This record gives sequence, structure tokens and C-alpha cells, in this order.
Amino acid sequence: MIVYGDLQSGNCLKVKHILSFLGIEHQWIHVNILENETKTPEFLSINPNGKIPAVVLDDGRVLCESNAILGYFAEGTDFLPTDRFQKAKVYEWLFFEQYSHEPYVAVARFIQKYLSMPESRVEEFNSLQAGGNRALALMESQLATSAFLVGEQPSIADIALYAYTHVADEGGFNLSDYPNIQQWIRRIAAIDGYVGMS
Amino acid sequence: MIVYGDLQSGNCLKVKHILSFLGIEHQWIHVNILENETKTPEFLSINPNGKIPAVVLDDGRVLCESNAILGYFAEGTDFLPTDRFQKAKVYEWLFFEQYSHEPYVAVARFIQKYLSMPESRVEEFNSLQAGGNRALALMESQLATSAFLVGEQPSIADIALYAYTHVADEGGFNLSDYPNIQQWIRRIAAIDGYVGMS
Repeated sequence: MIVYGDLQSGNCLKVKHILSFLGIEHQWIHVNILENETKTPEFLSINPNGKIPAVVLDDGRVLCESNAILGYFAEGTDFLPTDRFQKAKVYEWLFFEQYSHEPYVAVARFIQKYLSMPESRVEEFNSLQAGGNRALALMESQLATSAFLVGEQPSIADIALYAYTHVADEGGFNLSDYPNIQQWIRRIAAIDGYVGMS
Repeated sequence: MIVYGDLQSGNCLKVKHILSFLGIEHQWIHVNILENETKTPEFLSINPNGKIPAVVLDDGRVLCESNAILGYFAEGTDFLPTDRFQKAKVYEWLFFEQYSHEPYVAVARFIQKYLSMPESRVEEFNSLQAGGNRALALMESQLATSAFLVGEQPSIADIALYAYTHVADEGGFNLSDYPNIQQWIRRIAAIDGYVGMS
């Protein structure tokens, strides 16, 4: 199995984490988005949407979308509940992550860390702070009532939200405003198989 | 069971469709987002994220995020494959919808149809066209090879992508450029239990 990704990308780190937590062997091929390596004809033949991560299974079939990849590997493991309602809550957090969290927290980080905050994007960067803090506040509120986002065991909801949350400071967010999130970050970093971004 | 939603919203139409296709009885309570009915203390106590649709199950538990709701009801039915890879491909389309389709196609429609294209948002409206057409082109390409987005049977991937695609013209997109999508729209509208937006 081959994973195309960049460990500095939260979306890719999610895939690294589920594979590492489950002890699934794989080859990791580094892809540099700033050099447009996701837009080459070769890469677009793997993922026509031109995004990483992308997983090529041993039989050649391809899976994309980080959170769909998480679901694929987590099914039947402790990282995805079997209870129908609990499983739906995990997916609720996964969709929340892609719509209400990543477009603020990850994009602000991208502008500041990857692009070094060009003048032309300062206004956009500033406008992302409110949405990012709204998403973080919702997580903070949930984590006041449970150790992980869905109950007392880590699930792929935690893996997905951890990815950009633990480096939210790189997007201008102040995690010291979120003590429950800070404790949760430490809980995730203590899971066997944990991998850092670099 | 109570569903809070607005049938003019594609995200809400998805929930109406899965419930109608599966013949699941429910009470539908109309919520008007333009009058900020999703931001009242009462509504925020149901969904702290302040978004519709929201489903209150008979036991009082709440599910949000349209695509997570689809997964909840579809599990164990013909609308979600049991094969692990096929199921992951359905979720791949669901995450694609929320990240690469809805933020362009639905937001452009919102600006034109709900807000009547205020001068202050014309530039944003125009900037959304390229991303929306990119998403539609990816669907068009898939639908050249299969009758539905994942194989030959309709799944929640189709229900999710149908919602904003079939009214993409209201966001300035020209569906006559996408003949496979047009045929697919007719296939979905022919499913028993189909409901229109009004």
C-alpha cells in the first residue's frame, strides 16, 4: 500500500495516525503541494481532484478524502464505534471538521506558515479567526463533558480534529484559551504509535 | 422524530430524501435561516453549531451534519454498500461534497437566490464559478463510467450530491455543459419517494 502525502499537512497526518495506531504497514511518498506536485498528470491520474492524501491499496484501487480514508481503516476497530448512533456522532465530527474547522484553522495556518503571510492575504487571514475560534469553542465545550470527542475512548473523530487543532497556534489561534482541548491534545499524543508532524 | 430544516436548502433536502426513500415517518419543522432562527437560544440548545438540518430522534438524542445523518439512516439499507471499499467510496463523495462542491455551488446559489446578489458579494459570486465547475466536471467524469456515483445503484453519495447540483443553475452554473449529470438528475428524480424542493 502506498500513501501519497505531506506530514506537515493535517489531512495527511490523519492517515499516518490511523495507520500507525493500527500497525498497518505502508510506503509513504512525500508530495510537495507548493511545487504543484498534486497537479501533475501522473498525480491527477491517481486523484483527479488533485489533493493529498491519496491511498493506493495493494490491488491498485485508490481512496481519497482524508476522513473517508479514516473510516475505511477504522471500520471494525476500536477507533470507530459499532453502535449506530455513536458511529453517526463520529461522522458528525468528521463532517464538522471539513466544513466548520479546517476551512478556518487549516487555511489560516496555511497562509501564515506555508505562504509566510503575504500582504494580499492578511485580510483573509484575519477574517478566518472568528470561524476558527467558533469551531475550537465547540470542541472545548464537548471536551468538558467527555475525555474524547465521542465518549471515553479515542476514535477517528479525535484523529481528524487533532490534526489541525494541535498546530492551531501556527494559524494565529491561542490554545491557552482552551484548557480542555489542551488536555485532550496530551491524551492523543499519549496513544501508542503516535507520530509528530516532523 | 423531528427534523428541523428548510426544503429550499440542499443540505436539508438530503435528509428529506433519505427519509422519504426509506419511508421513515417524521415531523418536519421549518426553520428560516434568513430570520436567524438557527441562532436562537432554543435552536442552539439543539445544535450548538447553529445549522440546519438537525434531527431529534424519538429518545431525544440529536444528530446534525446532513451527511452524517444520511449515513445514520442509510446503514443497513440499499443506499449504503456493505462492501468496505465501496462504502468508503460513498464517504469519499460525501466529504468531496462538503469540501469541494457545496462551498462553491451552494454558496453561489445562496448569494444569487437567497440574497438577490448584493453588489458587495458579486466578486465572491464570480470567484466561486471556477471551483463549482471543477466539482461538476469531476462528477461528469465519474458519471461517464457508471449510472450513479458509486456503481449502478443509487447511494447516499447521489442523494448528497444531487441536493445542490440539480439547482446549480440558480448559482450561475450551466448544466447543459454536463450531459451525464443531466441524465443522472433524471435517474434520481425517478426514485420512488422523490420530493422536490417546493
